[in-house]
Amino acid sequence: QRSRDLGIAPGVLQPGKLNAITDVPGVLVGQFSLIEGTDIRTGVTAILPHGGNLYQHKVPAGLYVANGYGKLSGISQIRELGELETPILLTNTLSVPQAMEAVIGWTLKQPGNEQVVSVNAVVGETNDSGLNDIRKRAVKAEHALKAILSARAGPVEEGAVGAGTGTIAFGWKGGIGTGSRLLPEKLGGFTVGVLVQSNYGGILQMDGLPVGKTLGQYYLKGALDSDKADGSIMIVVATDAPLSDRNLTRLAKRAVAGLARTGSSFTNGSGDYVISFSTAESVRRTPERRSEVSTIAELPNGLMSPLFQAAIEATEEAIYNSMLMATDTRGVRSATGQASQVKALPLEAVKQMAEQPVSY
Amino acid sequence: QRSRDLGIAPGVLQPGKLNAITDVPGVLVGQFSLIEGTDIRTGVTAILPHGGNLYQHKVPAGLYVANGYGKLSGISQIRELGELETPILLTNTLSVPQAMEAVIGWTLKQPGNEQVVSVNAVVGETNDSGLNDIRKRAVKAEHALKAILSARAGPVEEGAVGAGTGTIAFGWKGGIGTGSRLLPEKLGGFTVGVLVQSNYGGILQMDGLPVGKTLGQYYLKGALDSDKADGSIMIVVATDAPLSDRNLTRLAKRAVAGLARTGSSFTNGSGDYVISFSTAESVRRTPERRSEVSTIAELPNGLMSPLFQAAIEATEEAIYNSMLMATDTRGVRSATGQASQVKALPLEAVKQMAEQPVSY
Amino acid sequence: QRSRDLGIAPGVLQPGKLNAITDVPGVLVGQFSLIEGTDIRTGVTAILPHGGNLYQHKVPAGLYVANGYGKLSGISQIRELGELETPILLTNTLSVPQAMEAVIGWTLKQPGNEQVVSVNAVVGETNDSGLNDIRKRAVKAEHALKAILSARAGPVEEGAVGAGTGTIAFGWKGGIGTGSRLLPEKLGGFTVGVLVQSNYGGILQMDGLPVGKTLGQYYLKGALDSDKADGSIMIVVATDAPLSDRNLTRLAKRAVAGLARTGSSFTNGSGDYVISFSTAESVRRTPERRSEVSTIAELPNGLMSPLFQAAIEATEEAIYNSMLMATDTRGVRSATGQASQVKALPLEAVKQMAEQPVSY
Amino acid sequence: QRSRDLGIAPGVLQPGKLNAITDVPGVLVGQFSLIEGTDIRTGVTAILPHGGNLYQHKVPAGLYVANGYGKLSGISQIRELGELETPILLTNTLSVPQAMEAVIGWTLKQPGNEQVVSVNAVVGETNDSGLNDIRKRAVKAEHALKAILSARAGPVEEGAVGAGTGTIAFGWKGGIGTGSRLLPEKLGGFTVGVLVQSNYGGILQMDGLPVGKTLGQYYLKGALDSDKADGSIMIVVATDAPLSDRNLTRLAKRAVAGLARTGSSFTNGSGDYVISFSTAESVRRTPERRSEVSTIAELPNGLMSPLFQAAIEATEEAIYNSMLMATDTRGVRSATGQASQVKALPLEAVKQMAEQPVSY
Repeated sequence: QRSRDLGIAPGVLQPGKLNAITDVPGVLVGQFSLIEGTDIRTGVTAILPHGGNLYQHKVPAGLYVANGYGKLSGISQIRELGELETPILLTNTLSVPQAMEAVIGWTLKQPGNEQVVSVNAVVGETNDSGLNDIRKRAVKAEHALKAILSARAGPVEEGAVGAGTGTIAFGWKGGIGTGSRLLPEKLGGFTVGVLVQSNYGGILQMDGLPVGKTLGQYYLKGALDSDKADGSIMIVVATDAPLSDRNLTRLAKRAVAGLARTGSSFTNGSGDYVISFSTAESVRRTPERRSEVSTIAELPNGLMSPLFQAAIEATEEAIYNSMLMATDTRGVRSATGQASQVKALPLEAVKQMAEQPVSY
Repeated sequence: QRSRDLGIAPGVLQPGKLNAITDVPGVLVGQFSLIEGTDIRTGVTAILPHGGNLYQHKVPAGLYVANGYGKLSGISQIRELGELETPILLTNTLSVPQAMEAVIGWTLKQPGNEQVVSVNAVVGETNDSGLNDIRKRAVKAEHALKAILSARAGPVEEGAVGAGTGTIAFGWKGGIGTGSRLLPEKLGGFTVGVLVQSNYGGILQMDGLPVGKTLGQYYLKGALDSDKADGSIMIVVATDAPLSDRNLTRLAKRAVAGLARTGSSFTNGSGDYVISFSTAESVRRTPERRSEVSTIAELPNGLMSPLFQAAIEATEEAIYNSMLMATDTRGVRSATGQASQVKALPLEAVKQMAEQPVSY
Repeated sequence: QRSRDLGIAPGVLQPGKLNAITDVPGVLVGQFSLIEGTDIRTGVTAILPHGGNLYQHKVPAGLYVANGYGKLSGISQIRELGELETPILLTNTLSVPQAMEAVIGWTLKQPGNEQVVSVNAVVGETNDSGLNDIRKRAVKAEHALKAILSARAGPVEEGAVGAGTGTIAFGWKGGIGTGSRLLPEKLGGFTVGVLVQSNYGGILQMDGLPVGKTLGQYYLKGALDSDKADGSIMIVVATDAPLSDRNLTRLAKRAVAGLARTGSSFTNGSGDYVISFSTAESVRRTPERRSEVSTIAELPNGLMSPLFQAAIEATEEAIYNSMLMATDTRGVRSATGQASQVKALPLEAVKQMAEQPVSY
Repeated sequence: QRSRDLGIAPGVLQPGKLNAITDVPGVLVGQFSLIEGTDIRTGVTAILPHGGNLYQHKVPAGLYVANGYGKLSGISQIRELGELETPILLTNTLSVPQAMEAVIGWTLKQPGNEQVVSVNAVVGETNDSGLNDIRKRAVKAEHALKAILSARAGPVEEGAVGAGTGTIAFGWKGGIGTGSRLLPEKLGGFTVGVLVQSNYGGILQMDGLPVGKTLGQYYLKGALDSDKADGSIMIVVATDAPLSDRNLTRLAKRAVAGLARTGSSFTNGSGDYVISFSTAESVRRTPERRSEVSTIAELPNGLMSPLFQAAIEATEEAIYNSMLMATDTRGVRSATGQASQVKALPLEAVKQMAEQPVSY
């Protein structure tokens, strides 16, 4: 069940129709889950800002690194040029090269890209070695390509799927989750959509409910193991608001506030990244706009705040969805090769907490 | 009453003896409240990393800007050199120059500084124009100097005092607050202390309790006024752990996670800053260490995570203290000159929420 | 004599009419030199992006810190919002507060700013303590105000004037210098203007001429004194090209390449800063554009390169002008109180080098 | 011939014994040139900070991005943790994934790394599509592995070799170049070594000699083609000085000043990156030092300046070497598939300019 169905609906704004990143018009998501034998539990998730030639019709983009113990590729070019020219792929830590290879190959082959000699592949990752024998590097470029090719609009599969097949969050099964917020017309009427790959730790709270403490599973419990909260999260934020790359970077930063509210401990070993982009036609960097002085739309700084609130809320809910939609998963711990099992959050217990009568 | 006395004790770690930034040995705090007539409600708060000659015995320091709509001085030098050479002063937005003047003057006069010709004054601010006629720029260098000179160890006055005399948070009275965490020996035994000047908005939640929603006062309520959550927060983080300036910057970043958990909306008009420093003798930049290759202590990256959790928790609690210890305040709205009044958080209502019986 | 008159004309592009920052339409410069007794040799230089209400009609702005051992105020807000809302003032290191006070006071008093309660004063500095008794903090807010009020279009006074009254560069007299480049129509027809306050060191070369080595005055000469190249430079870059704040920051970064070509050693004690802004009406942040989604002009990334080259060249030439137009100056060394004298570059020797017959 | 042999010896400091990055004790360089048919002209260059297990014995590292239009991998982790845990590989733009794959595979296989599940592969690139059919992505992981395995101390091959096989600089043949500076004992006695992969443009000057203008080949010549200076440079800086990661980042920044002095135009399409590291045992992050509070050595800020000057000079000379040691090369232009040829700098002409009698 999704978070909202359990009565966990963080924030004050309303979600979009699907409560998914695909509520932002044009955004496509594709996933490929790679499950083989007892030891391969991994995959790839692809997010496409639009269905056209992304290289020729670039989108303005922002980026924020909350903790940089991770391997996200493409960072400097996004920052320098303020734009995205490929799909965003998510996968596991050691398979970033194979996913980049797929992005580059796919881009070179798109009609109209025959003379392209430079591609900024953007591939993020979290480390699924708790369930997946990551050292085998099972993900190949062809798998990543399947994720790209399967991208479509509409509902997004959540939980133990795609790049979230083998991830773990707060000691329970993590995975892919999504959420959105639709601003009222008075605040601009824009949509903000978020997709996450959750694989981190801390002291889980869900819209204020002390889930981790109550269920007795949290970082620093008994101060026995100071590092078991390690892990990472990749967050992708899409919006149809006409934002500059600077304001997209600011928007990306807000997603981390949503992450903080779930109880993340932002440990040393965490790779916490946010990539954001705008799908608005009025800011798209078309071949025409890239060849001369042109006019573009811009939402001014002073009107950004409601979008910030939307990004915070959608991220928080996307994370809850990533966990609540996940299922018990068996695999191996890559470092040792031993079998491992990770349970999904116990829905009944969470539901009971959410439905606790309080007379506020 | 302080947060913990009301049963609001965020996190899993224990506070230090005073639950204050002054739990970090050596740290001194001084405050000067400037209250004149019906329209001046402002002041200065000074934090000294130690009681010696700060310019000669510099401390390693970090800095993080969550949202940069603010006037914190001294930013680039802290980042470039990774150190602090003066007290940190907090005041109101338009009085930063006068406070800098005091810091410079005080530093030039310290014995041993007779040949000093460069001083990096670090002065932060939030905008108290909702209660204080800020355009009058009532704070003078002499007032700021009094804050420095009154700095001492021990308990820190909280609420509507010093730089928090006229600030507002979540629509209630904000102010100065402090908190700390003491790590168990197993995790290093270090202390992390935090002091905040709260003046921002969002949707207040206190350790998960939906205070803002319950009391009907929060950002975007009715979507009528998209900017009323604006405002800022200054956060100062001290520790006795022997940290490099890089790891101090990482520690500073974590304070923002504590801020996020209180329900901040991180609006466009917010100036959200964190300055952090280490008081450890083993990393202090003494004249000797600054003159040749020397050996310094360093807590490695891999042992930082418990400190990160401590900074998150101490910040969250310091913010609650800043509000719960504040009192109803009358003043004027500077932009219009009209009288204004800001209520403190209703303690009874908060207490009732905190004591709500739940059977988790 | 100016650099170009001596035959030192770096680069391949042509200067504007005045070869000054004021070639960028609308830019105003004002200066106030404070010379008192034998020990006060300092001043203030003000650069105004336009003659209107700067606070209400903000200009997009960029910022780059090459080495951050300096006290430039206003950094975080320029970066966060990508804009400038006040004049830029330059002065000496310890007088930044007084200059900020003037900027704030002046801004509050501008017609239309009656309700303004927040001002981001941007004040840069270099340390003129080699000729000026900087510890006396002789510059007062009233002096800084005079610089603002005297701002005008047209030729800019260079050398030992305004904020350059007491500065030293490469061991010779430094000061204020300016330069510009006008791109041919084919490359956009835009103007880039630069103003510098030079106060740094290294191994002076002028358009490739080994001036420092030839005249026997340079950093690390004999490896006797490892710090005598310390010092700083403030660089202001103006353009009428319609640039985003991101591309203005990139433009600012290029100014440092011009600085590098003069032989700067970028020492530890250097505060090397660049602030850039666009005066184009089509990107100005007017009250209208700041209140709703609007359309603004934008020069795309792909057309930036000629502007980059222009910024490099104009900066290099502005620095030469700052030195070649300076005159011998007597004052005191602030740290010791002893008399000091700094010679201007020997024009004849430089001229002779520049006119050396070579058969390339 | 190398730069110094032609009389072009920039700066005032002396080079190390080899005038190469390998003058820094422990540093190893390996190269693999991939030349196939008429259209493949590319390769890989590997730099190893030391010959031990780099993952277990990490080295402190810094990073600077002068212009970020490039695909350097591993950026965020270097910045977050301040360290390097793999060799640095350089190759062509579209082959970054294959080189990363080699780095990851090689690292996983090192004795002692059997439980490693996370590797931060650092691979830089420049675009050799002017001579190499880059779209074919001819470089495979096995080629990159050969570069790593062939790494050794001693002289470094320069010019059209390894990752420099197909690069172009200032319209002439670029490639791999190296240089070093050895500080006198009085300044610390440290060595700074630099290796570059040159592939950029501008207006070439060599230690002040106007080579580009004199030979009539430079950016914006005739203002006909505003983009032909595009291209990139990768710079690797090694030192045996015991530097913190912060000071290594500052050192990296100085390399760009050396680049500026060669006449780079820092165009929009340029990817200009510097990675720096320290080989000093006293700062190495050994398993012991990474497991508890330890003491490390640190050269203080105030003693950095001579190292800065060394980095500037060594970079400048490394670039000259990369061009002067290169040879005429034929290949194809990847975007069009047409044959192309790039000439090396005419040594005689350069020599003549360098030997021009001047009576300074």
